Amino acid sequence: MKIRPLHDRVVVRRMEEETTTPGGIVLPGNAQEKPQQGEVIAVGEGRYVDGQLRPLSVKTGDKVVFGSFAGNTVKVDGEELLIMTENEIFGVLEG
Amino acid sequence: MKIRPLHDRVVVRRMEEETTTPGGIVLPGNAQEKPQQGEVIAVGEGRYVDGQLRPLSVKTGDKVVFGSFAGNTVKVDGEELLIMTENEIFGVLEG
Amino acid sequence: MKIRPLHDRVVVRRMEEETTTPGGIVLPGNAQEKPQQGEVIAVGEGRYVDGQLRPLSVKTGDKVVFGSFAGNTVKVDGEELLIMTENEIFGVLEG
Amino acid sequence: MKIRPLHDRVVVRRMEEETTTPGGIVLPGNAQEKPQQGEVIAVGEGRYVDGQLRPLSVKTGDKVVFGSFAGNTVKVDGEELLIMTENEIFGVLEG
Amino acid sequence: MKIRPLHDRVVVRRMEEETTTPGGIVLPGNAQEKPQQGEVIAVGEGRYVDGQLRPLSVKTGDKVVFGSFAGNTVKVDGEELLIMTENEIFGVLEG
Amino acid sequence: MKIRPLHDRVVVRRMEEETTTPGGIVLPGNAQEKPQQGEVIAVGEGRYVDGQLRPLSVKTGDKVVFGSFAGNTVKVDGEELLIMTENEIFGVLEG
Amino acid sequence: MKIRPLHDRVVVRRMEEETTTPGGIVLPGNAQEKPQQGEVIAVGEGRYVDGQLRPLSVKTGDKVVFGSFAGNTVKVDGEELLIMTENEIFGVLEG
Repeated sequence: MKIRPLHDRVVVRRMEEETTTPGGIVLPGNAQEKPQQGEVIAVGEGRYVDGQLRPLSVKTGDKVVFGSFAGNTVKVDGEELLIMTENEIFGVLEG
Repeated sequence: MKIRPLHDRVVVRRMEEETTTPGGIVLPGNAQEKPQQGEVIAVGEGRYVDGQLRPLSVKTGDKVVFGSFAGNTVKVDGEELLIMTENEIFGVLEG
Repeated sequence: MKIRPLHDRVVVRRMEEETTTPGGIVLPGNAQEKPQQGEVIAVGEGRYVDGQLRPLSVKTGDKVVFGSFAGNTVKVDGEELLIMTENEIFGVLEG
Repeated sequence: MKIRPLHDRVVVRRMEEETTTPGGIVLPGNAQEKPQQGEVIAVGEGRYVDGQLRPLSVKTGDKVVFGSFAGNTVKVDGEELLIMTENEIFGVLEG
Repeated sequence: MKIRPLHDRVVVRRMEEETTTPGGIVLPGNAQEKPQQGEVIAVGEGRYVDGQLRPLSVKTGDKVVFGSFAGNTVKVDGEELLIMTENEIFGVLEG
Repeated sequence: MKIRPLHDRVVVRRMEEETTTPGGIVLPGNAQEKPQQGEVIAVGEGRYVDGQLRPLSVKTGDKVVFGSFAGNTVKVDGEELLIMTENEIFGVLEG
Repeated sequence: MKIRPLHDRVVVRRMEEETTTPGGIVLPGNAQEKPQQGEVIAVGEGRYVDGQLRPLSVKTGDKVVFGSFAGNTVKVDGEELLIMTENEIFGVLEG
């Protein structure tokens, strides 16, 4: 089962990160504040701007950066996903 | 008796879910926080955007996901239904 | 004497409902929270949207559902009526 | 001396009402909450909507109904008048 | 030295009023709440509405009525003046 | 080094004023509340309004009046300057 | 790895400044309030205004001035960067 987001909404799977503290100790992701990165797994059909449907600027597979309060958490088949508007995404990680 | 929602409003029947706790005990839906899923049972005629009537992106029968504070509760023939604007719906469950 | 509502406003006569409690006792309407249903008794001429006057989507005689804080109470010839914008109406009861 | 209201503003003379209590005692208007009715005594030239000047929907002499917090009180030649935008007027009393 | 107000701003010289109390005693203006009347001494060039510059509806010399919190106080050559947007002006006193 | 303000922003150098108290004693500017006057030292390229770039209504060298909370303070080469949107400027001092 | 900002967002690397106190002692940047200057390292593709995509007014390499609360902090390859909308940038430092 999957979610087809409406309009300018985007479904994101939050990425857990292994992190190294300044002193070099690796902490598992859940001992820290939530990472602000994730992978786009579905995008809405776009939004009407000045009478024209504009598709979104992100696509499935993009790695995106967003604020720590972005989006709403939804559970699909037991997995926690984020659903946010494209506006809440700051940018796409590349390279 | 049924409700014909106005403009971009949608009538949703909240879905009760059986859930399994981490330890494997099945709890009836009403012992937990309200599920955020439901089935669309009626949709409004759409909204005027830039001078054109745009029909909604959801249709009767769609299974939708929405925030826990979405919509207003109305009682029709003793049944509690939710009526919300399409904007409050995050996406449609498929597959 | 009657009220001609302006623009997108609608005059509604709140419907009192007889209700049966779970145990089967009928309570008169005023012992409970206010019903959220009413009958439209007058509608405004409509609203200008993108340069065109759009008539309202409800008409006199419609039975409508609305939130418990919708509208303002006005007294005409001793009768208490509600006057609200069409936006505050969730939908029309049919059937 | 009189006030020419600007744009979509309307000058209203609040109507004092004699009222009969349920038990039949007539109370002078000032022993109760302020009436929400008045007579329009001047209207502005209208408002620009989508590039066109639209005249107001009320006219001098109309008896109007409005919320108890509508408008601002101004004193002209010792008389207290209300000046409000047309939007704050719910409807016109007729018949 | 004088102020040329920008856009839809208006410079107003507040009018002090001699007032008679109910008992007939004349109080100088500064022993009471501030009068809400003044004289327009300069007006801005207007505002762009739907792509066209619209000149203001008040002109120099107009006696205007405004709310007690309207505008900002500025001092020019030692004189306290009010500068407000035309929107804060309720109407023009005439006759 | 200088600042080129973006869009409808304006860089202003606050003017210190010598002031005379009612009793005739001259106080240096910094013993009082901040003056609300300044000189425009740079203006942005303008703003898009209804699809057209409109240049600003103030220009370099103008003496402007603004509210005491207008703008943000920025330091350029050790000098404190204000940067505000043109909207925060009430008017231009002339004559 | 780098961030491609969306729409009207801009990625900025905050500039640390060496500062001299009034008495002439040089303090390292981190003993003071955060500097409000930075260098643009990536810009979004622009924003739709009245139906047309307008590119941003800043470009990679520009030294920009912004308020102390502008933007969100994101970490890319261990480096802390700011991502803000162009609107939060006051101006560009030149010369």
